[in-house]
Amino acid sequence: MFRSLLFGTFLSILATQTCFADKQQPPNFVVIFCDDLGYGDLGCFGHPTIRTPNLDRMAAEGQKWSSFYCAAPVCTPSRAGLLTGRLPIRNGMTSAKRVVLFPNSGGGLPAEEVTIAELLKENGYATGCVGKWHLGHLPQFLPMAHGFDSYYGIPYSNDMHKPGGVPLMRGQEVIEQPVDQRTVTKRYTEEAVKFIETNRERPFFLYMPHTMPHIPLYVSEAFTDESPRGLYGDVVEELDWSVGEVLKALKKNGCDENTLVVFTSDNGPWLSFRLEGGSAGLLRAGKGTTFEGGMRVPTIFRWPAKIPAGTLVTEMGSTLDLMATFAHLAGAELPTDRTLDSEDLTPALLGEGASPRETMFFYTRGELYGVRQGPYKLHLWTREPVRYGRPPIKHDPPLLYHVEHDPGEQFDLAAKKPEVLKQLQDAINKHIETVEPAVDQLAIPVQK
Amino acid sequence: MFRSLLFGTFLSILATQTCFADKQQPPNFVVIFCDDLGYGDLGCFGHPTIRTPNLDRMAAEGQKWSSFYCAAPVCTPSRAGLLTGRLPIRNGMTSAKRVVLFPNSGGGLPAEEVTIAELLKENGYATGCVGKWHLGHLPQFLPMAHGFDSYYGIPYSNDMHKPGGVPLMRGQEVIEQPVDQRTVTKRYTEEAVKFIETNRERPFFLYMPHTMPHIPLYVSEAFTDESPRGLYGDVVEELDWSVGEVLKALKKNGCDENTLVVFTSDNGPWLSFRLEGGSAGLLRAGKGTTFEGGMRVPTIFRWPAKIPAGTLVTEMGSTLDLMATFAHLAGAELPTDRTLDSEDLTPALLGEGASPRETMFFYTRGELYGVRQGPYKLHLWTREPVRYGRPPIKHDPPLLYHVEHDPGEQFDLAAKKPEVLKQLQDAINKHIETVEPAVDQLAIPVQK
Repeated sequence: MFRSLLFGTFLSILATQTCFADKQQPPNFVVIFCDDLGYGDLGCFGHPTIRTPNLDRMAAEGQKWSSFYCAAPVCTPSRAGLLTGRLPIRNGMTSAKRVVLFPNSGGGLPAEEVTIAELLKENGYATGCVGKWHLGHLPQFLPMAHGFDSYYGIPYSNDMHKPGGVPLMRGQEVIEQPVDQRTVTKRYTEEAVKFIETNRERPFFLYMPHTMPHIPLYVSEAFTDESPRGLYGDVVEELDWSVGEVLKALKKNGCDENTLVVFTSDNGPWLSFRLEGGSAGLLRAGKGTTFEGGMRVPTIFRWPAKIPAGTLVTEMGSTLDLMATFAHLAGAELPTDRTLDSEDLTPALLGEGASPRETMFFYTRGELYGVRQGPYKLHLWTREPVRYGRPPIKHDPPLLYHVEHDPGEQFDLAAKKPEVLKQLQDAINKHIETVEPAVDQLAIPVQK
Repeated sequence: MFRSLLFGTFLSILATQTCFADKQQPPNFVVIFCDDLGYGDLGCFGHPTIRTPNLDRMAAEGQKWSSFYCAAPVCTPSRAGLLTGRLPIRNGMTSAKRVVLFPNSGGGLPAEEVTIAELLKENGYATGCVGKWHLGHLPQFLPMAHGFDSYYGIPYSNDMHKPGGVPLMRGQEVIEQPVDQRTVTKRYTEEAVKFIETNRERPFFLYMPHTMPHIPLYVSEAFTDESPRGLYGDVVEELDWSVGEVLKALKKNGCDENTLVVFTSDNGPWLSFRLEGGSAGLLRAGKGTTFEGGMRVPTIFRWPAKIPAGTLVTEMGSTLDLMATFAHLAGAELPTDRTLDSEDLTPALLGEGASPRETMFFYTRGELYGVRQGPYKLHLWTREPVRYGRPPIKHDPPLLYHVEHDPGEQFDLAAKKPEVLKQLQDAINKHIETVEPAVDQLAIPVQK
């Protein structure tokens, strides 16, 4: 047993030599971003019948974040927030008119936005995007116009049909239409592994926004009828396999130690689809709402060289924060000519301090719905969890929850805590002053 | 690093020599049984702000069971089921008249019942009970009348007041009244550690039914105002500390390898108490109901010598099964003169086969409310989650859920699956024939 331990360590030392892994060098970044995966859909986040051994191990070797928020409760604005570190209200990527971008949309992420990919590319990183984009499918909006060296994936959601069906693209070209969705997770995984192999000598940034488990659900043959949770479980178990393959590729190419891998989701579960949607666990509501179930997402960070294994952060973090965190760790400079909503999470990641994120604003449909500051969360407006086609509900006085005591948002404290209510309303007023009008990108039709 | 690894192993080999730990010998058993802890209240079962590093590690080193049921959704019958391996309907420990035993009750677990303690004591085990009993507080019903060599704890629930307050007992004697509840978890832990030290040369069975987190909640000073979840979190985090101390004592006394430790709960969270009660996570309802939230409990088995680390069992198990499992592992013979409801879980524990439990009957208040067989669960009757003082609701046709696909019991399949409905109704009819009338122990008043 000691022999094999020693031998294993020897091999892993050898392997490390082949990668761009000098600890003085900036880390590689891999962001695995699921689509509509709920807070409660992983083993390590409490699901009883979805088996996720690779993610459970990733959490045991890394750091679980239990109050981590996406930037918006639907696809397009959530992705815009992650890649720019800015609330989507600042760049027109959330709209009162349309929820997300559609195949007949003419807008997309504006050229003047700086993405994580652009920032890192300028600092010598290889950058790749493998998966669902959904930030504009016209050439000027696609990944390679936003700092990615390569792109493989679908340009918008897998339920968006136009004549010919959902396309699969490589770079700017459609290479398959309709895409065979049964194998997208498998093929994304192969592309990701290839990207790691190809770029192991350089620092790299791999952005991997999966198509699944967004409906319609598809799974490859090897995972069909395997999960006790049924089709939705099959799909998540294949995503778990995919994470395992990516981590394996990092090890094989000697990049494991110095790669920061982030696993998270773009928003909560799509409850309208019943058992074809996921579960937010003990959180209230799901996708499309600004309740915790809509925007708190299951999140794991892993970076063997720096993150203490098996740790938990209960403080706030957000996909908005990846921009400032990666910039800091890569030694890149953040743009200074615009408002950013991104916090550098490094102290919390390294176990050296608290998360700097003290406030989170919850937007949807181009409107500010609420805010969390410390443990308190205020809702000005809410939407119904399932039938979110209905008009939103205005709350006056606002709803107030202590989401550390009451993560399920069950017990309104507005009447009991007027001083907290006022403090959060002040935070909103101060924030609103920082928001300038932007062109509504989601409302732009295709130019004929 | 290798030196310390080697040295650590050397020390642990040395330590093992001091304990009754020859692997040919039967294992020790420790059952840690929380009171009203919900399915969603541990980190490894998905709670965001209750921090349970010791239990999370116990799961990583052992086996998590995600469909494990207590014997009844309230204290007294649940405990009777665990200790006898029999549904409480068989020995009068569940009643249509009173929910549980009270300080003015005259009944208790009948003398003719065979407990796990009696069975193991006959087979040479040292047996100790540390914690809340609640199977009759008159001398003829107390732990030492049911196979335990020693007893330290409170005789019924910590919210049951009679003149003088809740007593703390050692053996048959009251040693403190009212008991200082702030230190019960701490003192139970010290007693458990002492029991392990004292009995390390023999095979032992330690039954540790905690008083907490049943209301009223109390916590020792070191854990006060520490958890982000508030008082309930403080209490569970102290229980987690206690588990860590017990595991540490096993290691220190060289018993770690050959001790099977089971951690579980007597029923789901008491939702009526709002934030002073726990959470069932994604499961429906809580204590007092036969929905999953009332009877599926967070369960971890750990036995380094035999249980593969970091494993998950999604199949059914029950506290009812500890009797047959322990008997098998201890080489003890089960009583043959009565009906048992206990399955030997050994194949699943060792990773050698499926769990033998294929059916689980759900009783409360002396009545059969439902049954689960395979993934399907049928409800003849249900109770409301919070206001369970109200009359139960009869379902005709019964409710039918696929609780592996739909652990939250949201989507009734009765109309879609008549053949499954019939199969489960047949199982009920067959089961009912095995149930013979028993004296209602909960309805017996104190003899004046």
